[in-house]
Amino acid sequence: MTDINIIKKRINATLQIMEEMNLDAVYQPHEDEYLGEYIPINSERLNWISNFSGSAGSIVITKRKSFLFVDGRYTLQAANETAGLNIEVVDISKINFLKWLYLNKSKIKNIAIDKKIISHTNFLRIKNTSFEKSIVIKDINKNIIDIIWKKDELINQKSCIIKYEKKFSGLTSKLKRTRLSKEILSLNAQCLFIPNPDSVAWLLNIRGTDLKYTPVVLANAILHSNNKVSLFLENTNIKKEIKKYLGHDISIFNKEELEEVLRKLGEKKYSMLIDPIITSEFVYSKATLSKIKIIPANDLIIKAKAIKNNIEIKGAINAHIKDGVAVCKFLYWFYKKAHTSITELDVVNKINYFRSINKEYLSNSFPTIAGSGPNGSIIHYNPTTLSNREIKKLDLLLLDSGGQYKDGTTDITRTLIRGKPNLELKRKYTLVLKGHLAINMSKFPYGTTGAYLDALARNHLWNNELNYNHGTGHGVGHCLNVHEGPQGISSKNIIILEENMVFSNEPGYYSDNKYGIRIENLVYVSKNDNRKNNKSKYMKINTLTKVPYERRLIEKNMLSTLEVQWIDRYHKNIYKLLSSYLNKEEKNWLKENCKKL
Amino acid sequence: MTDINIIKKRINATLQIMEEMNLDAVYQPHEDEYLGEYIPINSERLNWISNFSGSAGSIVITKRKSFLFVDGRYTLQAANETAGLNIEVVDISKINFLKWLYLNKSKIKNIAIDKKIISHTNFLRIKNTSFEKSIVIKDINKNIIDIIWKKDELINQKSCIIKYEKKFSGLTSKLKRTRLSKEILSLNAQCLFIPNPDSVAWLLNIRGTDLKYTPVVLANAILHSNNKVSLFLENTNIKKEIKKYLGHDISIFNKEELEEVLRKLGEKKYSMLIDPIITSEFVYSKATLSKIKIIPANDLIIKAKAIKNNIEIKGAINAHIKDGVAVCKFLYWFYKKAHTSITELDVVNKINYFRSINKEYLSNSFPTIAGSGPNGSIIHYNPTTLSNREIKKLDLLLLDSGGQYKDGTTDITRTLIRGKPNLELKRKYTLVLKGHLAINMSKFPYGTTGAYLDALARNHLWNNELNYNHGTGHGVGHCLNVHEGPQGISSKNIIILEENMVFSNEPGYYSDNKYGIRIENLVYVSKNDNRKNNKSKYMKINTLTKVPYERRLIEKNMLSTLEVQWIDRYHKNIYKLLSSYLNKEEKNWLKENCKKL
Repeated sequence: MTDINIIKKRINATLQIMEEMNLDAVYQPHEDEYLGEYIPINSERLNWISNFSGSAGSIVITKRKSFLFVDGRYTLQAANETAGLNIEVVDISKINFLKWLYLNKSKIKNIAIDKKIISHTNFLRIKNTSFEKSIVIKDINKNIIDIIWKKDELINQKSCIIKYEKKFSGLTSKLKRTRLSKEILSLNAQCLFIPNPDSVAWLLNIRGTDLKYTPVVLANAILHSNNKVSLFLENTNIKKEIKKYLGHDISIFNKEELEEVLRKLGEKKYSMLIDPIITSEFVYSKATLSKIKIIPANDLIIKAKAIKNNIEIKGAINAHIKDGVAVCKFLYWFYKKAHTSITELDVVNKINYFRSINKEYLSNSFPTIAGSGPNGSIIHYNPTTLSNREIKKLDLLLLDSGGQYKDGTTDITRTLIRGKPNLELKRKYTLVLKGHLAINMSKFPYGTTGAYLDALARNHLWNNELNYNHGTGHGVGHCLNVHEGPQGISSKNIIILEENMVFSNEPGYYSDNKYGIRIENLVYVSKNDNRKNNKSKYMKINTLTKVPYERRLIEKNMLSTLEVQWIDRYHKNIYKLLSSYLNKEEKNWLKENCKKL
Repeated sequence: MTDINIIKKRINATLQIMEEMNLDAVYQPHEDEYLGEYIPINSERLNWISNFSGSAGSIVITKRKSFLFVDGRYTLQAANETAGLNIEVVDISKINFLKWLYLNKSKIKNIAIDKKIISHTNFLRIKNTSFEKSIVIKDINKNIIDIIWKKDELINQKSCIIKYEKKFSGLTSKLKRTRLSKEILSLNAQCLFIPNPDSVAWLLNIRGTDLKYTPVVLANAILHSNNKVSLFLENTNIKKEIKKYLGHDISIFNKEELEEVLRKLGEKKYSMLIDPIITSEFVYSKATLSKIKIIPANDLIIKAKAIKNNIEIKGAINAHIKDGVAVCKFLYWFYKKAHTSITELDVVNKINYFRSINKEYLSNSFPTIAGSGPNGSIIHYNPTTLSNREIKKLDLLLLDSGGQYKDGTTDITRTLIRGKPNLELKRKYTLVLKGHLAINMSKFPYGTTGAYLDALARNHLWNNELNYNHGTGHGVGHCLNVHEGPQGISSKNIIILEENMVFSNEPGYYSDNKYGIRIENLVYVSKNDNRKNNKSKYMKINTLTKVPYERRLIEKNMLSTLEVQWIDRYHKNIYKLLSSYLNKEEKNWLKENCKKL
């Protein structure tokens, strides 16, 4: 956490530049040039200028004050982190940036927006709103924050590409490209623009070290319908061995060369599939200028990547056994070994340590969330030296963490307590658990979407006038982004839940400034009846995560017989799978925590 | 049921006319000129030409054979009713008429469609599909079936308008018109076209006798923004008393005068709100020709009508007590008095009788469905002398019926058995009941739609790979159509469930050719906490229907404590409300059936 006075100076410096350039407002979203959720430290402009450390949001800086737009997960956190900065935190479910723009016509005459860090779709929306209200979008070639941010302070990480072998990916890059090329041709196009680094990684069977939590290399690419790829990197100085691994079909360019490549494709009158929702306005406008025939279409790779192959599912199962071992070792420590006076940061360090000792561990899959007592009610809380809090015996601890392993990505939340909880906490925990179990136990006909599962997750809470202000589940990558689309569990999601899609199941309940409860497993979809020639069109949910629930918080008489049976079977299976990887004390602890309810 | 040979002759006569007119195909939907579900007998063209008696569907007659398009409720029934007629029954969830048209380009060059009985939206869809496949839509001014159907066989009912007093409607027509006029002006229009007879009835506080199951008069209207109404009737010869009741603001026209009125509005360059989904192509094209400025918009009355006022809700509660008394009298007869050898038609006659003896009864709200054993699996089965079946002791009887009373419309389904059911039937019934109860017991934040309730209704069945091929609930009118929009319970419904909306809650399960189970109550939405100044934004479901469930079919150990408590409270309340209207034997029977589970 940066000193508040330093942030103030940065904002003032920005305001001075705005004055020099005659700007009324500057818009800065969290995203970087790849429009990703997790971004390199030298792209953390939103955090640098506002102190807000969440993974989604945007700020508008104006002379009078600044406005930070965040979703329900981040409202409390943003208010804490920006205290004293003359920044107003705005909940986007009430007023989003577009609405704000619409309402502030009289106060601003122009706004600067960096076209590299905003999608074409969002840019169009802003443009339409601005146009209607006669606000001028100032097209300046440099990001305003980059003018004052001296980035040479930061270690300049060297981009590194890692092979991702077929035993992990399940399919060769060539086969993936062949299949996609057919799709490109069937859509009357000659090529596909790939804006996302994780899509590039998936397509080329590579991984990288450019980001802290996602094993990708920052890159764009163009897939041509002849299976060839133009790969655009931040740094083209890559090892010979990797060049050989990529093969002759992959041509490597520096990212600055994209404009030139687009121009040449335009000369040939190529048609290109571009997804305007995930492609930056910068690239989209360059493609338009180049006279390429743009065919706007949903990205083909996002769906292909979301439906895991059987090798990937097998890998995910193994990764979750490894991860379960790490978490159970942590839990044994937490309950039996730790001092009573441990803090949230102790918890973060310890669980990170237990993951890191696995030799196939690459990194965490996101910053560990460890919120005790009131901090638990901050949905995406990461403890810092300033916010760090001692965990008392009767505090709930919300612990949400995950790892990147070569054979899969994990993401698990458990809500823990070391003392004996009161009935209120048990009731709330059990209501959340019942929603979580309803998803685990659900079967549904093929064609069902995540909206159905969302209803099951909220039913028991809603019946008690309780709710949570976030989605119920997100898609998860395979040794890639911990959040990926297109599937998910929310009332708005209309993507059919296909066999082998992986996603999280994570209902919660948050009592502001008191405590937070969340229970999260990763799951995947399969046919309910896997026998050959089966005619059933029903799908079922399979649980990947292997860690017992917090027994102390379960109010058993609120569970149905079927729910109790499900938990007992789940726990029994966990003990069977994990116990051989644990030492004697850990094993005894696990046995105790996996016995019948 | 008409003799199959008579229907054959009718089809042949149609084919002959088609040959004379050089037509390859004729399209005939169930709807009449008012595009309604329940239509007068002289508009039952689909039934007349195909013998299919369902309330929704369409036929295409071609030289080779005919195709009858129906939804899941009607597939079995349509196959039975059209047996031997060279009519192929097509499930629209697999191939709808548009898809059929698309696939049959090579077989037909033209098709005749009567523009009066198809909405503008559907006509456009057909036109686009036809255009793409170069099929000509033949515009003939007369309905082909009307050419051969000698309608003077039918008693020509005289249209009769009935006053609908404020004690039933809750609001005066004038107030309704004033409110709507403001809305019309706010949408920059001068008038609103009202295509539906039930909307006309609601707006003018009138009812009528033109239809067997819906107390409306067949009429269209135009509401002007000065609160005045142009009312178009089939027969303008109405009583002086009614003219006086309607008042000076209502001008009465014969329906043939609509074209002329539209022309005059066009001359004045009026803007008119028209809902293209519920307005016939005939009217829409006349309005277009008249140079009226058409503003396509969702019908304003449909939503206003769906949100009942407090007088209407009170009325509905009373209507359901009367209806509950009738149904309970029937049930006592069914279990205690009836011969063991009663038939489905005996049941229909008896339940209709018990409703009819109430002095405020107007009519049934739809044809009584009484399907025993295999007939129960026909979702909308109405027994006929041909299909009539003796109800055996171990048969399930699916009984779906309802009445029109001045203070409300009812619609209830109970599934009954007189003997001791086997465990399979009890399990299936209880799974359906659990879905039904989940809706009854649900609370949800304001903003929730029927899609949420649909998930709750299907969850327990889906988890057992069981389902039902119809929606879970439909809106219900107030002494009007038993099916009305816009709200409803289905996975696709996106209408917010507002306070005082009334709808059915009717999950089911059907084992083809064996039995059918359906459990239906009418319910309405209210705030969960009705105290003044309450800040809760949660809504709850209130049950209108007052008839006990079939205890013999409940497998109690499949129910949660909360579910059992809900049923016990519901039954206790039924006994309290109904018992004073029953004779001693009936009362004892009810007491027995309302005791704790």
